[in-house]
Amino acid sequence: MKSIVLLIGLIAGIVTVKAEDGSELWLRGNQLNQTAGLFSSISGDKHQIAFEEFQQGLIKMNSRELAFSNNVADKGLLIATTKNAQIKKLGLAKDLKGLGREAYLIKTISQRGKKFTVVTATKPEGLLYGAYHLLRLVQTGQAIGNLNIVEKPSYDLRILNHWDNLDGTVERGYAGYSIWKWDELPAVISPRYKEYARANASVGINATVLNNVNASPEILTQEYISKVKAIATQLRPFNIRVFLSINFSTPRVLGNLPDADPSRPEVREWWKKKVAAIYKEIPDFGGFLVKANSEGLPGPMDYGRTHVDGANMLAEALKPFNGLLMWRAFVYEPGDDRAKLAYKEFIDFDGMFADNVIIQVKNGPIDFQPREPFSPLFGAMKHTPLMPELQITQEYLGHSNHLVYLSPMWKEVLDADTYAFGKGSTVAKVTDGSLITTRVSAIAGVANIGEDTNWTGHHFAQANWYAFGRLAWNHQLSSETIAREWLTLTFDSAAPDLMDMMLTSHAAAVDYMMPLGLHHIFAWNHHYGPEPWCDVPGARPDWLPRYYHNASEKGIGFDRTTTGSNAVSQYYSPLKEQFNDPETCPDEFILWFHHLPWDYSMKSGKSLWDELCYRYDRGVQQVREFQKIWDRNESLVDPQRFREVQSKLKIQSKDAMWWKDAIILYFQTYSKMPVPYSIERPVHELEELKLIKLDMIHHN
Amino acid sequence: MKSIVLLIGLIAGIVTVKAEDGSELWLRGNQLNQTAGLFSSISGDKHQIAFEEFQQGLIKMNSRELAFSNNVADKGLLIATTKNAQIKKLGLAKDLKGLGREAYLIKTISQRGKKFTVVTATKPEGLLYGAYHLLRLVQTGQAIGNLNIVEKPSYDLRILNHWDNLDGTVERGYAGYSIWKWDELPAVISPRYKEYARANASVGINATVLNNVNASPEILTQEYISKVKAIATQLRPFNIRVFLSINFSTPRVLGNLPDADPSRPEVREWWKKKVAAIYKEIPDFGGFLVKANSEGLPGPMDYGRTHVDGANMLAEALKPFNGLLMWRAFVYEPGDDRAKLAYKEFIDFDGMFADNVIIQVKNGPIDFQPREPFSPLFGAMKHTPLMPELQITQEYLGHSNHLVYLSPMWKEVLDADTYAFGKGSTVAKVTDGSLITTRVSAIAGVANIGEDTNWTGHHFAQANWYAFGRLAWNHQLSSETIAREWLTLTFDSAAPDLMDMMLTSHAAAVDYMMPLGLHHIFAWNHHYGPEPWCDVPGARPDWLPRYYHNASEKGIGFDRTTTGSNAVSQYYSPLKEQFNDPETCPDEFILWFHHLPWDYSMKSGKSLWDELCYRYDRGVQQVREFQKIWDRNESLVDPQRFREVQSKLKIQSKDAMWWKDAIILYFQTYSKMPVPYSIERPVHELEELKLIKLDMIHHN
Repeated sequence: MKSIVLLIGLIAGIVTVKAEDGSELWLRGNQLNQTAGLFSSISGDKHQIAFEEFQQGLIKMNSRELAFSNNVADKGLLIATTKNAQIKKLGLAKDLKGLGREAYLIKTISQRGKKFTVVTATKPEGLLYGAYHLLRLVQTGQAIGNLNIVEKPSYDLRILNHWDNLDGTVERGYAGYSIWKWDELPAVISPRYKEYARANASVGINATVLNNVNASPEILTQEYISKVKAIATQLRPFNIRVFLSINFSTPRVLGNLPDADPSRPEVREWWKKKVAAIYKEIPDFGGFLVKANSEGLPGPMDYGRTHVDGANMLAEALKPFNGLLMWRAFVYEPGDDRAKLAYKEFIDFDGMFADNVIIQVKNGPIDFQPREPFSPLFGAMKHTPLMPELQITQEYLGHSNHLVYLSPMWKEVLDADTYAFGKGSTVAKVTDGSLITTRVSAIAGVANIGEDTNWTGHHFAQANWYAFGRLAWNHQLSSETIAREWLTLTFDSAAPDLMDMMLTSHAAAVDYMMPLGLHHIFAWNHHYGPEPWCDVPGARPDWLPRYYHNASEKGIGFDRTTTGSNAVSQYYSPLKEQFNDPETCPDEFILWFHHLPWDYSMKSGKSLWDELCYRYDRGVQQVREFQKIWDRNESLVDPQRFREVQSKLKIQSKDAMWWKDAIILYFQTYSKMPVPYSIERPVHELEELKLIKLDMIHHN
Repeated sequence: MKSIVLLIGLIAGIVTVKAEDGSELWLRGNQLNQTAGLFSSISGDKHQIAFEEFQQGLIKMNSRELAFSNNVADKGLLIATTKNAQIKKLGLAKDLKGLGREAYLIKTISQRGKKFTVVTATKPEGLLYGAYHLLRLVQTGQAIGNLNIVEKPSYDLRILNHWDNLDGTVERGYAGYSIWKWDELPAVISPRYKEYARANASVGINATVLNNVNASPEILTQEYISKVKAIATQLRPFNIRVFLSINFSTPRVLGNLPDADPSRPEVREWWKKKVAAIYKEIPDFGGFLVKANSEGLPGPMDYGRTHVDGANMLAEALKPFNGLLMWRAFVYEPGDDRAKLAYKEFIDFDGMFADNVIIQVKNGPIDFQPREPFSPLFGAMKHTPLMPELQITQEYLGHSNHLVYLSPMWKEVLDADTYAFGKGSTVAKVTDGSLITTRVSAIAGVANIGEDTNWTGHHFAQANWYAFGRLAWNHQLSSETIAREWLTLTFDSAAPDLMDMMLTSHAAAVDYMMPLGLHHIFAWNHHYGPEPWCDVPGARPDWLPRYYHNASEKGIGFDRTTTGSNAVSQYYSPLKEQFNDPETCPDEFILWFHHLPWDYSMKSGKSLWDELCYRYDRGVQQVREFQKIWDRNESLVDPQRFREVQSKLKIQSKDAMWWKDAIILYFQTYSKMPVPYSIERPVHELEELKLIKLDMIHHN
């Protein structure tokens, strides 16, 4: 065995000179150097990807002491499915019974005075997740001497949504162009496809929608199906299934049919044939994601049909292949308070969708704002599976320039109590299959991935990709746990101040962008900077900030109480009563649900105006504190990533001042009240800020 | 008398609706409203401008209770020269004996149980200053019930230097174009000429050089002399004499002479005739100011002659008319440490100048830097009158964008001890005639005046014009006293925080621009922003910042010790020894005199690098504090001026961050040391700051 040991040492030596440019994500191996003597040998199903991946991970950790063996010796490691003869002898299969294909067991076994570790699962995919789990324990320096871990995922489907266009751009993508090189596929296979698959698998993501929900019909041509097949081939070993977004009018566009009416037999037939053609090429194809009758896209309502008609037609075509149909509830035809529209449009269809349909619902009722209350559809549809759609890409949170760790925001939604089935009916429980029956429970995250060297533009945006996967696997994980794991894996240090920076970063961003329930006061289209004064002639009212802030000399906020738009009534008691009363409505959402006078007395004792100013200032001060924290940790971080994050923090710091000044100075024209004298004064002129026009739409 | 009282009330009513745009400077009258019953009547030399001016001042104060009388009644006021019969009866002339034409007496007289106030002087000009003094006491709300004030000026000549060009631009002017409308003169007389004269007279300024020291020969054409005459006519009633800057080569240019060699008889003759021609038009013409052989301008050295040759030739021409010749010592022919050059070039001429020559010396040895030690020429020339040249315009202190009250800087210089005649030989005393005999003692200030509505661009820059006049009149006044007067007159409030803002503003600017004796690390030419990295191919070394900062990995600063350039030796003991040793050299000048390693241990215990960073940060924080102070005082200030100052403070705040980041990030490339972690982090990138190129040269 000596020769293998030496070989590993040699490879490790080469690996360690790699630059720290963020390209290896959290899979870079770490520098903890506590791997010496970890395992005396590994054995098991060497043909399994789990085995390979674990071995690869250890190599990255510069392990020079590992040997491979066919015997489980003292301090040895055995990685194998329950079909493996050694595992069978240990009788571990019972621990995994009924837990599904993705579950695994990691266990320390004591036999004849000797200890060894076993990773096992009934299926290769479970084994893969188990291998990554153990690797993570090793790489984060956790005790592994006495393990007994059984895990299965919270959601069956843990899926990324790429908003990647076929021309290579990414809608709301801030890490460069798309990683999918459609023009080169299927001939050229980027090495990034496999790296992407590994990264996703390592955090439990098991599916991906390759293209934008604003979908082009072209994706369903035979040419593109062969490209999709090539990607699927790369992802399959890592247990990642491929899905596609489809354009509802595709039968008309590609099939030469007069329309795409779901009641037209030729249309239904067209879809069945198309689906069969896809499955012929990609037998494990996942299914479709559909954005229909939303923001100008075609859908069944174009023909007087309903969401049910449209979704069930597609579900019918997918059914024979066990395919899933994800139908988005992001719809807001004008006519009422926008926050109410998705609920109004879907609630009456409860129980009417085919069983392979799942409704994909954004976490909040508007659109991925810095902070929203959860969408009232969660829990309201008791006979229809719903899947939360989270946004990993920071469309409304500073793109890839701002350090904003999103786990606390997602946890706030997942842990929010809908009261749909009484107290404790959290958004997580009404979507993960616990309280509402679902064939496949699912959660989606809009990806923040691009072709940038570091994948996500901002090194810390990698943490959001990581956190989405980890929470999709286990929504009970705390934001702290995830941050600690990620920091340790990515920077070799989860120093308390770095932890603190990550954990308070979302609250800081809300403070300097839109505190107290303010929402959608962004600049037109690019959603990066502030533009509460925005006016675009002819624009839909609900595409303009003043629709949301309603600022006047009388006050500010959106009255969604029973005497206002009555959006509160879409929530269960006691939430609706709590939200309806400004005295009990949480400060975080007070201007979401209430229009209040500037001198309204807040729970803090401050006037609403003062509280608003204070929060903006607090946001600015916090970003400055993040800068200090980062700089203090310079010695812990490699120079390139240190410098790149430092630069981003400078931008964030300036942007926070920009936001604060823009919002305070603009609303001051209504409040006519002085900025509280204890806080730092604006340094910008309102008129100068109004002139800022950024040229950024799809990606930067 | 009733009718006159009513008339005054009417005028006052009209006056008070005037907008507060700063156009009235400190002469706007105030809103203290304590004038009721101040004086029961006024009488005296009604034909005197002093009488008119006092009356005008009171009218502005909305006094409705003032009557005019020919008798000094109880609580009455008498304004008259000592020739006045009533004054003669009081026998007050003896109090003014030997004090000169500009001295005055203000005295409360008790007679037969009644009290009245007298303002008197031997000459009209003294009476004018006395009237302004009493008016200031009234307008600043000081007690006037028991006065006994005798004043005479510290300097005989209190002169402004306009760096105004004949094309209407102003070199280093930041308040718009010149107030002198040469193209309209002499036909059109701007009302501003008289307002200018009043403003100057009210603070004791009694002379002005109308044109730039970088002078055009054209100013001495007959055409221009008639224009100058028209201005002189406007200024004369306010005891302000007119001077001109001349170009040394004028005889060659205008007189068709082969050169301007001072040893050429035709040249001497030309000057005599020219001077006579001027005095024919302007009998009280003051004389010439000359910048010769400096920064490319012509001078006697072009012909192998000396400063003495050049100055004495001109002095000879002026002598018959009692004219004065001011010869500038701002010369720095390359060859040695620039800080030493003026001293080296002039010291040997001590005692050789004609008695109507005075040498005009900038306060510091380089060029109006944010802070300089005093010029070693002060006190060194014991047999030659020297006049300090101060810069009121903020060429190196943020132009008209930064609030920087200059009195503390000027006081620092005037009160600095040269030790030339033993301890106590301050710069003030070696220039005001106390220690060195001078026919006319003088002090000059480079004006910050332009055609802007508020005269000086920044409302608070008016305070520097005001302070120059007040210090020129009385260099013993404290900066506090002057600030209190000016604030009260200008904003009706000398609130403690406003006082504090003014009094600490120069120190703050030094902190965020050039602390610890750093100097001339400005951007090329415009001297507004930072450019320590500046490199202009072919430029004189001493026009580039690195000449001054000498930063390298080894340290920073200019070694002017005995083992360096030995500039310290130009100072008297004990200063030279004190400056020579970094342990005793004041922190304020440590990098002026020393090149020190980055880790040099400062008096504070901090390393030099940390101390530098700390001071920059302190400067930024202080400007932010100024913003708070100003905003807190909003209710005390009229809206227009409040808003305009607020805007300027925003610019200053951003500029301070710019300065701090530029200098710290640039020098960090040498120090390789971290910015101390307790201070706010940079928000700019060095490379981005290096790209800033401002298009500003003469005025903005």
